[in-house]
Amino acid sequence: MSVRSGTAGRDSTGMAKPVMWRVGVVVAMGQQPTPLVRRASEIDYADVSAGDGTRKGVLIDGEDGAPHFAMRRFELDPGARVPEHTNAVEHEQYVLAGEYTVGIEGDTHEVSAGDSLLIPAGAVHWYENDGDEPGAFICVVPNGDDDIQLVADEA
Amino acid sequence: MSVRSGTAGRDSTGMAKPVMWRVGVVVAMGQQPTPLVRRASEIDYADVSAGDGTRKGVLIDGEDGAPHFAMRRFELDPGARVPEHTNAVEHEQYVLAGEYTVGIEGDTHEVSAGDSLLIPAGAVHWYENDGDEPGAFICVVPNGDDDIQLVADEA
Repeated sequence: MSVRSGTAGRDSTGMAKPVMWRVGVVVAMGQQPTPLVRRASEIDYADVSAGDGTRKGVLIDGEDGAPHFAMRRFELDPGARVPEHTNAVEHEQYVLAGEYTVGIEGDTHEVSAGDSLLIPAGAVHWYENDGDEPGAFICVVPNGDDDIQLVADEA
Repeated sequence: MSVRSGTAGRDSTGMAKPVMWRVGVVVAMGQQPTPLVRRASEIDYADVSAGDGTRKGVLIDGEDGAPHFAMRRFELDPGARVPEHTNAVEHEQYVLAGEYTVGIEGDTHEVSAGDSLLIPAGAVHWYENDGDEPGAFICVVPNGDDDIQLVADEA
């Protein structure tokens, strides 16, 4: 069961509140994982609401009985941008395709296929695909709740 | 610090003992992970002793401060074969290249780029690349000790 909620708006001072999503995956206690081979064609992709031109597909997660971590695949269209944000959990990523920019804690990195990244929990990061080719990457996160918090005002 | 050890031989009955490796990565306690961008060209590959024509490169692991899991990349030459074995920890894998066979608990699967696999801890599995193209995959495992135990006799 996935639980997703989001809030956005202005606080009592009229300032734009940061936008926050909470994503939780409930893993059935004591569930014994069984082997899984999931084909590329079986993956459902959904738009990433925090980013333009970005999609996310879950390859394996707690709902499959994976006990510790989830593997997802992201796609970044040419022109895609995900603004500065933080997560409550770390990312381990592997770049599959394209040449795009990842900003982490004030540094920018042009990445391409075969590069891997560790983005610690709480690190401010962003993505931008200024190339002509679609970008794609694997992103692995520990199971459990994540808070995705945008850094920039939504005003 | 990585610790590797292996034993092989015969037990008191003269039967061939299974071959076992123990692989441990010590994570410095309290180490605060810092962002990491590791280029494909920086990865060192080493032959996998349990398999023929197979290599492993560590992309990110506990030595980088990754708190929960490690990401590795494996290469399977045409003709490569890793015999039936078990691991003490689960694998989450993503197929990058080639078309090769994965056996899991008696079932065989022909996999190709974009497919993902969950191989539970303790599940007997093997690999064989009967194709003409090199195979490659990402394999993510939880931090901590692993025991790699071959199922087949080494006699």
